[in-house]
Amino acid sequence: VLSAPAIAQENPKINWRLTSSFPKSLDTIWGGAEDIAKRVSEATGGNFTIQTYAAGEIVPGLQAADAVSAGTVEMCHTCSYYYVGKDPTFAIGTAIPFGLNARLTNAWFYEGNGNKLLNEFYANHKLYGMIAGNTGAQMGGWFRKEINTVDDLKGVKMRIAGLAGRVVEKLGVVPQQIAGGDIYPALEKGTIDAAEWIGPYDDQKLGFYKVAKYYYYPAFWEGGPAIHAFVNLDKWNSLPKQYQAALTDAAAYANTNMMAKYDLKNPLAVKQLVGQGTVLRPFSQDILDACFNASMEVYKDISASNEWFKKIYEDQVAFKKEGYLWMQLSEYTYDTFMMIQQRNGKL
Amino acid sequence: VLSAPAIAQENPKINWRLTSSFPKSLDTIWGGAEDIAKRVSEATGGNFTIQTYAAGEIVPGLQAADAVSAGTVEMCHTCSYYYVGKDPTFAIGTAIPFGLNARLTNAWFYEGNGNKLLNEFYANHKLYGMIAGNTGAQMGGWFRKEINTVDDLKGVKMRIAGLAGRVVEKLGVVPQQIAGGDIYPALEKGTIDAAEWIGPYDDQKLGFYKVAKYYYYPAFWEGGPAIHAFVNLDKWNSLPKQYQAALTDAAAYANTNMMAKYDLKNPLAVKQLVGQGTVLRPFSQDILDACFNASMEVYKDISASNEWFKKIYEDQVAFKKEGYLWMQLSEYTYDTFMMIQQRNGKL
Repeated sequence: VLSAPAIAQENPKINWRLTSSFPKSLDTIWGGAEDIAKRVSEATGGNFTIQTYAAGEIVPGLQAADAVSAGTVEMCHTCSYYYVGKDPTFAIGTAIPFGLNARLTNAWFYEGNGNKLLNEFYANHKLYGMIAGNTGAQMGGWFRKEINTVDDLKGVKMRIAGLAGRVVEKLGVVPQQIAGGDIYPALEKGTIDAAEWIGPYDDQKLGFYKVAKYYYYPAFWEGGPAIHAFVNLDKWNSLPKQYQAALTDAAAYANTNMMAKYDLKNPLAVKQLVGQGTVLRPFSQDILDACFNASMEVYKDISASNEWFKKIYEDQVAFKKEGYLWMQLSEYTYDTFMMIQQRNGKL
Repeated sequence: VLSAPAIAQENPKINWRLTSSFPKSLDTIWGGAEDIAKRVSEATGGNFTIQTYAAGEIVPGLQAADAVSAGTVEMCHTCSYYYVGKDPTFAIGTAIPFGLNARLTNAWFYEGNGNKLLNEFYANHKLYGMIAGNTGAQMGGWFRKEINTVDDLKGVKMRIAGLAGRVVEKLGVVPQQIAGGDIYPALEKGTIDAAEWIGPYDDQKLGFYKVAKYYYYPAFWEGGPAIHAFVNLDKWNSLPKQYQAALTDAAAYANTNMMAKYDLKNPLAVKQLVGQGTVLRPFSQDILDACFNASMEVYKDISASNEWFKKIYEDQVAFKKEGYLWMQLSEYTYDTFMMIQQRNGKL
């Protein structure tokens, strides 16, 4: 049923700037910002436009959210865990060691209390957050030497993001937080001995395989990291409801689309990397167990002095217990059967 | 940057009807239609509204897409595999036995060729499709007696959806396609011996546990079924670009939100069902192997005489091989570790 065009009352021309924490060379994780901008513009008939800027164009990659808090730019696309220096609670928004996988991350944010609780916290920093991308369980990173035992971790200078630094520090690793585009030179020069970034496709582009041979999995600190779109809270509140909805739905699209890009592109990349001499290695059970125990200590320590962290972490843990109970029935049984067929060349 | 409100050129008042294949009692799968309607209305400032109708209010649940093809209603929310009677290619849009899990379904539709190829096919039926919901790997259904061997399947009259009927028929099952709301009476009266529907939360609501004790997993025919929003193709083409974008993004939101609802609600439901006497049982390896082999025969048979099926199926298989290669590295290793912690009460 079509009637005459109405005169819009809430359709102002708005132009925002978005600063990303990622380089344009990574079409996957950088692409999330482009998806958001494109979808919002289309859904608003070009009235609400967002200009996207790569890490470093306006502010460095690890300062994207600061620029949004300060109102320098209206929004950013970043990992909340880059800001653990301000408050470790920021880590929970992306991923914490032995946290949720990508599927449960979506569930906790969309239907659990994740989005609600974290936005109460983000408001203290003048931020409104939406998840807008996921990488899936990441790879555990590139090492120049084999890491067979917990002892082998001692003294390793490693680029590792988020709270994971505090965890592996307990096992003797010397953690460093470095933005994506700056990791390769550090690894090449030997300033660091190891580096984790994302997964095969992105890591191949950044060239780590040229300077480190062993590629470990999984990143137990990033089982399903969410990428955030942060909007300056005042800007968010002043946005017409219609544009808030368009931006929310664009973030939902970007969230799924980024995961889809990774799942499309990682398989080929991992095969190519192996062809280029990369050696795939799972972390040993001892290492995973030691890191799990170290993580629980870190959570206990932080919770003792940080009410925000305690409240949000405990909610996520309750959700995680239920989620992994459920996922081990049909989902895991189905995937296991399918992976066996894949290995046997029967798919 | 705010400027004076512009006069909209492409903002007509449009009101559509959507018929769902699902009953309102299932807030999960019915909820997808409500999400779409709500999100579209919000993102268009109330100019594009969609009235939602449950199965049976306009047409029966299994005829939703027919009503859209015919132009009786502008759109529907349904499973494409309900229409395998017209063409088995419709099965691929939802799920086929031993097909993609939910994550890879998203990847194939968003970044692989799934959406493109299926929309070429749907156009023959005057439909434009978008995925707008997923249940995750479903449970394998409710049986009055234990199913331990392939022989135990012989003569079982079972409600089972999509192409799976043709697969289990090869093993002696007598398959029936029955809409969600009509399954319980059939199982209660003994018209059927077994029924699969979705998973713990929905199945509990429909009451199957009262008349069948054994609850098998996984539904090897529904590793990650996508729910479709179908729009009449002419109506889609006549929609302003802005509204096409709003509807596309609303479907993306609904897609993730439905999966989130299931992951939130299924864990509690499965525990309650066990408390109510339900016995959980995995299908035996022999049954899975026999059904896998039967599925491959079915695909070969259909491909021999159906070019659409062959083309789209082969594309999906190529994607599936790569996807399951990749998912068995970090994702599977991470989930396995986490599930062990869950079972050991350590999470």
